[in-house]
Amino acid sequence: MPDRSPMDTLPAFAALNDLARHPLDLTVPGALSPARIRTMVCQGGGCAIHYATQRVDDIVLDRLQELADQSGAVEQFLAMKQGAIANRIDGHDSENRQVLHTATRDLFTATPHEPAATAQARREVERLTAFLADLDSGRLAAPDGNTFTDLVNIGIGGSDLGPRAVYLALQAFSRPGRKVHFIANVDPDDAAAVLAPLDLSRTLVNVVSKSGSTLETLTNEELARAAFRAAGLDPRQHFLAVTGEHSPMDNPDHYLRAFHMFDYIGGRYSTTSMVGGVMLGFALGMENFMELLRGAHVMDRSAENRELRHNPALLLALLGIWNRNFLGHETLAILPYSQALHRFTAHLQQCDMESNGKSITRQGAAVGYRTGPIVWGEAGTNGQHAFYQLIHQGTTTVPVEFIGFRQCQYGRDLTVQATTSQEKLVANLLAQSLALAVGQPHANPNKRFPGNRPNTLILADRLTPATMGGLLALYENKVALQGFVWNINSFDQEGVQLGKVLANRLLDHFAGRRLDPAYDGGAKDPMGWALLETAGLLTRPVTKRPHP
Amino acid sequence: MPDRSPMDTLPAFAALNDLARHPLDLTVPGALSPARIRTMVCQGGGCAIHYATQRVDDIVLDRLQELADQSGAVEQFLAMKQGAIANRIDGHDSENRQVLHTATRDLFTATPHEPAATAQARREVERLTAFLADLDSGRLAAPDGNTFTDLVNIGIGGSDLGPRAVYLALQAFSRPGRKVHFIANVDPDDAAAVLAPLDLSRTLVNVVSKSGSTLETLTNEELARAAFRAAGLDPRQHFLAVTGEHSPMDNPDHYLRAFHMFDYIGGRYSTTSMVGGVMLGFALGMENFMELLRGAHVMDRSAENRELRHNPALLLALLGIWNRNFLGHETLAILPYSQALHRFTAHLQQCDMESNGKSITRQGAAVGYRTGPIVWGEAGTNGQHAFYQLIHQGTTTVPVEFIGFRQCQYGRDLTVQATTSQEKLVANLLAQSLALAVGQPHANPNKRFPGNRPNTLILADRLTPATMGGLLALYENKVALQGFVWNINSFDQEGVQLGKVLANRLLDHFAGRRLDPAYDGGAKDPMGWALLETAGLLTRPVTKRPHP
Repeated sequence: MPDRSPMDTLPAFAALNDLARHPLDLTVPGALSPARIRTMVCQGGGCAIHYATQRVDDIVLDRLQELADQSGAVEQFLAMKQGAIANRIDGHDSENRQVLHTATRDLFTATPHEPAATAQARREVERLTAFLADLDSGRLAAPDGNTFTDLVNIGIGGSDLGPRAVYLALQAFSRPGRKVHFIANVDPDDAAAVLAPLDLSRTLVNVVSKSGSTLETLTNEELARAAFRAAGLDPRQHFLAVTGEHSPMDNPDHYLRAFHMFDYIGGRYSTTSMVGGVMLGFALGMENFMELLRGAHVMDRSAENRELRHNPALLLALLGIWNRNFLGHETLAILPYSQALHRFTAHLQQCDMESNGKSITRQGAAVGYRTGPIVWGEAGTNGQHAFYQLIHQGTTTVPVEFIGFRQCQYGRDLTVQATTSQEKLVANLLAQSLALAVGQPHANPNKRFPGNRPNTLILADRLTPATMGGLLALYENKVALQGFVWNINSFDQEGVQLGKVLANRLLDHFAGRRLDPAYDGGAKDPMGWALLETAGLLTRPVTKRPHP
Repeated sequence: MPDRSPMDTLPAFAALNDLARHPLDLTVPGALSPARIRTMVCQGGGCAIHYATQRVDDIVLDRLQELADQSGAVEQFLAMKQGAIANRIDGHDSENRQVLHTATRDLFTATPHEPAATAQARREVERLTAFLADLDSGRLAAPDGNTFTDLVNIGIGGSDLGPRAVYLALQAFSRPGRKVHFIANVDPDDAAAVLAPLDLSRTLVNVVSKSGSTLETLTNEELARAAFRAAGLDPRQHFLAVTGEHSPMDNPDHYLRAFHMFDYIGGRYSTTSMVGGVMLGFALGMENFMELLRGAHVMDRSAENRELRHNPALLLALLGIWNRNFLGHETLAILPYSQALHRFTAHLQQCDMESNGKSITRQGAAVGYRTGPIVWGEAGTNGQHAFYQLIHQGTTTVPVEFIGFRQCQYGRDLTVQATTSQEKLVANLLAQSLALAVGQPHANPNKRFPGNRPNTLILADRLTPATMGGLLALYENKVALQGFVWNINSFDQEGVQLGKVLANRLLDHFAGRRLDPAYDGGAKDPMGWALLETAGLLTRPVTKRPHP
């Protein structure tokens, strides 16, 4: 990989620190001029990024461009796409893997960046196409000869959030008569609530785990298999797997079909692999899944441009770094004005925070600056009636990325009080962007708005499969580019390990007590044992209860 | 109201600032001792608050107690319950209202704190009981003579988030054959997606707006009424209203029934009023709704104790202030280990951020310290596979409040690898609490966990209607108590107004252009007009499209 220096050693870093002492004041009358609004727009991959309401001017943008150049972010991004070992920490035990989720959609060109990975992606797409055709033709059918109507997706984290967000976003494009349900949580009530109302005889179950050993997923698979057997059904005729080649789950004796993902695809970047593909292909049809991939591919290409004013992902990445490292803001609210995107922020929260919530450089040294922000948010206009009070008038500044569309999905709209609902939606979106930026003076201190709350508007025509693919890729690429500038490894997740180790220690206590009522774990694990006791989990055992 | 001084003028403030320079180090071996774990538990209202994993010792707790005492927080809370004008800003135009949401559940005692408000609550409960009995007896039925099976709740913000979170939390207690659906967003796709699959002839619609003039709600009501008329149904036979007495919606000609809320109940505190009552009574039965109220009432009583070690809400409030003002943390993650609570954090986000995202004191002066944090979170164990990486190893410390239960709701559980799913769930919950607190040294810098990430465990037996009521009240009271200590008005929301004003200006442009194609709003609103043009909303008009 080229250019791996800590961000604070790059020449542009000091210059930006200086500039941040007097950031642009958007509340000065005329500062947010029509000319500024018209100029500060970046087009790419079917989206327009409006950033006039950020606290940047051309000087800041030039220095951010230099920071990007000096970090070699775009070169690293290209090297990543071409198969570099981007997932590593130099000189320390680390995953040492390629990072090739972009290969899963590099299908629309004769010259993909990494032909071997794209060939693997293409083979899985073809296997999925054949499987879905078998469902359509009736070659594969439910035991009663009818078609499968429902699919339950069992996965967690990257095997749940992205696929679920995209499915919910594109339900308007669903194939009639097909529905998808999701089980993720190890909480037994999750599976119980999802499985109870289903006709299992017409239900497929798609179990997704790259390692084939995810605790939650295996446990929920067992719960689901037990439900099928209790209904007199053979799970082998209903269960699909998406897993790594040669994982414990890659076993044709247990599944109707097993589709593959590969160790160069991280869970949180896996929506465009078979992890999203099997479920989305079933729900939306293969054509729509391919449209999603095409939209992602077009956006991936736009991210190769070295000029941040013409590269949406790079622009979002550097504006984010300006807000995070130079203006000092800890969080980022992503607020889609689209009910269909109501779980997209939860996916982006994972994609961003699991990637960039890191404290060491790719050389294993402590970073000397802040890395990934806390990402949160809900759909607008709902959020306006919830937490916008704090965003407008709280003591903490929250940078915002708004997402909106000119058209609705279903086309069922009505004119009430002279405007349509879609017009009300976009009017609110634009109004919030302006209000946060310019604020409002007032004689009554309770009606004052300080303004200078930086925000960006991401606009597209309509939330279609291609647009969704573009948005997915836009954020995946933004996150990766930020990681390159910060000189951190955005592709591992060592921070999830300690919790797993401690959870297993506590589970050993439950199992030990089950085998031997006199079992006492207090000697070897005084802290965990004391907490279990104090929490009432040893004296009042966790038992099964009848349905309420 | 007693005692309204800025927090930084209270004697305990300086003492706490001193103590915060050397907060307790939980990573020192033995610091988190079994004795500490056993001692630092506060019981109340059916919940246990475990706070050994916060960075406090007895000295800090004593000073926090003094801060609470000096602010008169509990006295103010009692005065609020007794009908004081707690919603006001002295010397400035403000709402000047009582704050009496607690009266809606002060039904289980002969001596309620504010008898008049409780009498109004009781009357509405009785009217609701009679209405639900009419549904049960068949006196009120769908046009085909069958019972109503579905209810669509139309509301936004406080009329949506709390009721929706509670309904989802208690679906295990639903009456068989009854389902509830929610429309909140002005996005026309929200209503389209919800209404399409319903049999409207057996559907009730509950329209909720205190003012009777909420843009989103009225627009969605019109969309819903149009759908009923298109299906040949008379909306008057299906539509219910929950609104303020004498609001524009309080009109028996338009609704089957109108239930009342009162101007002393803020939207975000209204779940235990008819705002939640009508929908929850329909879905869960009146007995379960009364159990919810009873649980909230018991928790309300526990919040009257002046000792924070014996008052769960006061303890959470002061630990929050310690983390926010003295240790300097900007956000709070609320992480319920219960899939049923998957929307509870979204409700609490509103309840907290709309209440305490304020920058002026109750005397209208700028506050000299930070107020309400950013509240965010998702259900565990899901979050462990999403954003916990940042919580464990990121450059920002995130205080956490975990919520968990000893028992599951449905009782459909299975032993896999020697433990049940519920045991896996609580083992993960406890493990995260410990891991965040104590961290882990390691030779590999990527496997180091710094620890000292403060967190609290809130534990209860099982998520029942009473427990849910308790949790709701716990957080409502925590938020109010924090506002009293911060000397801010937690009960208004002026910060939502500016966006509304600007949105109306933009809507005028859409309407103007509709009436006159030559309309040009650029002269009177150059900024808004330029943004509309640049966003492509004037050249490419927002039109209706056919279904995809």
